Amino acid sequence: MRIALDAMGSDLGAAEMVAGAWQAVTESDLEVTLFGDEKILAPLVSAYSGPGARRLSIVPTTEVVGMAESPIEAVRRKRDSSIVVAFEHLKLRKVAAVVSAGNSGATMAAAVRSLGRLPGISRPGIASVFPTLKKPVVMMDVGANVDCRPKHLFQFGVMAASFSTVILGIDRPRVGVLSIGEEQGKGNSLVKKTDDLFRRSSLNYIGNIEGGDTFKGDVDVIVCDGFVGNVCLKISEGLAEALTGLLRIEINKSLWAKIGYLFARSAFISFKKRIDYADYGGAPLLGLNGTGIVCHGRSNAKAIKNAIFVAGELVQNKVNDRILELLPDDETLPAEEVAGDDDSLSGAG
Amino acid sequence: MRIALDAMGSDLGAAEMVAGAWQAVTESDLEVTLFGDEKILAPLVSAYSGPGARRLSIVPTTEVVGMAESPIEAVRRKRDSSIVVAFEHLKLRKVAAVVSAGNSGATMAAAVRSLGRLPGISRPGIASVFPTLKKPVVMMDVGANVDCRPKHLFQFGVMAASFSTVILGIDRPRVGVLSIGEEQGKGNSLVKKTDDLFRRSSLNYIGNIEGGDTFKGDVDVIVCDGFVGNVCLKISEGLAEALTGLLRIEINKSLWAKIGYLFARSAFISFKKRIDYADYGGAPLLGLNGTGIVCHGRSNAKAIKNAIFVAGELVQNKVNDRILELLPDDETLPAEEVAGDDDSLSGAG
Repeated sequence: MRIALDAMGSDLGAAEMVAGAWQAVTESDLEVTLFGDEKILAPLVSAYSGPGARRLSIVPTTEVVGMAESPIEAVRRKRDSSIVVAFEHLKLRKVAAVVSAGNSGATMAAAVRSLGRLPGISRPGIASVFPTLKKPVVMMDVGANVDCRPKHLFQFGVMAASFSTVILGIDRPRVGVLSIGEEQGKGNSLVKKTDDLFRRSSLNYIGNIEGGDTFKGDVDVIVCDGFVGNVCLKISEGLAEALTGLLRIEINKSLWAKIGYLFARSAFISFKKRIDYADYGGAPLLGLNGTGIVCHGRSNAKAIKNAIFVAGELVQNKVNDRILELLPDDETLPAEEVAGDDDSLSGAG
Repeated sequence: MRIALDAMGSDLGAAEMVAGAWQAVTESDLEVTLFGDEKILAPLVSAYSGPGARRLSIVPTTEVVGMAESPIEAVRRKRDSSIVVAFEHLKLRKVAAVVSAGNSGATMAAAVRSLGRLPGISRPGIASVFPTLKKPVVMMDVGANVDCRPKHLFQFGVMAASFSTVILGIDRPRVGVLSIGEEQGKGNSLVKKTDDLFRRSSLNYIGNIEGGDTFKGDVDVIVCDGFVGNVCLKISEGLAEALTGLLRIEINKSLWAKIGYLFARSAFISFKKRIDYADYGGAPLLGLNGTGIVCHGRSNAKAIKNAIFVAGELVQNKVNDRILELLPDDETLPAEEVAGDDDSLSGAG
């Protein structure tokens, strides 16, 4: 199986992306094709040698979509950008999936343009995996769709539940809608109207959950619109950084604390490892007629490697078939609320 | 100055509330009147003696609004509940402000019912103070109004900026709207429509901010609807708990780490102190014709004491006059977007 890697547009540069691709081919049977500027990529790739080397290849492209560019506009204009060409290769089945750490809105726009949506899905979205005190939880949508209707939220639940089963091995994932009170009837008008769709579905729906439940591990799938999800993702990253920063400041204030830190260092390293997003392999784009993963702009080689592995698993374990299986199960739902075309992609990441 | 304290309905019970009231009267010149069941309160109060004792008094009430009760319904029905009677006393100017750690939706409903709104304010809301790496930041709304229009968000900005000036001493607070990208034009339709109102105002508006900026301390006031704000508040509390829990688990795994923790203990205590919500004195209800504060249900005595102090400062420094000053400054705004009556209170906390 061959995975496409958009080697341009990440914050850490092409060398880190190539290093991630190298780790992936040496630790698995996957092949990785790098899309990007050949003059930059060729020397980086040829620096690696060994049994994995012939499973690394390059498709040269001449343009790059920057982080600040308007996604839909950039994808329309930059036909020879690494991200657009990568998804065109996926459309032609020359690769099995695409991984990118570039502009997430542009990644989604290029994916929708080349692949189209799965039948019955109105709005593809971005899922994100959060560590918790127990098993990881999947939140969807985290940025692709900022103004949603009830059926969009319902479909996010179906897609994220499929991901949870296929990648995290959770058989009947517990699905909750993010709200501001656990009781039925609490929430904004969107959440209140969504409740009924879930209640009438075959999903393992547990009702509303609150923000504070996110990290407890008592829910497997958290459904929300892309505005709320993106705010949750960013505020969690920001708080984790602020808290570790504060702790470092306090420890550095006293010599005894610094000595204590040295003794406790292994605990801090394990702690950091448990909350390291690099272990979670990026955020899958779900609802597409194909497989794509968007990684954090600051992804290191390990994060890229894990994203490539997750992309391979999504293809191998047929997450899209699982989504299609779950959708028609819900025949009790009014057809117009469950499936049908729709105005696509409104937001960005 | 006399502050009313709703002594019923908190998670930790009346003894903790009375202890907080006692700390407040001994550490300041304030008087505190406790509202609640006299049979419970009288013995608790009489256990304290000293110069502060005659500044503690009780107004007996017979009913309590529970945490799970429907706010508007409960306030309408339970006329002799501690929270309703406390706000009735404020309406009659027998007390200067009300503090409660009970059902926050009911506190807001009782406040609106007894006091009414400030002229020009469509929707009173709940502000919350977050610690950051620099100065604390005020977020509003965090739960009272779940479905908002642009003018509501604008007014939250005016009210929270007034609070920031009066309580946190920030002269021209930087006001940002919570969105999913810093560039103008990023966000959902509500946020996009709100941008223009702020740009045309006299506030120190810095545009969109992202969730990740919340804890950096480069913005003083964060504006959002009550659904998003409540999710942010709860997810932050949940993550802080999960992270400290994880760290504890990792430290307990090894003897060396436990020894290290003992050396570093003072750093951990300072760290905990810096993120302790008890220091921030609860969440003010802003936009009312009067002053109310709702505290976390699990507030300890120290948190109650600080909330009583903040209530006193809000009255003394005339936060409501400041709000009224800031509102008419914005004469360039279309009148119908800035002021005017509105459908009140839609959510809960």
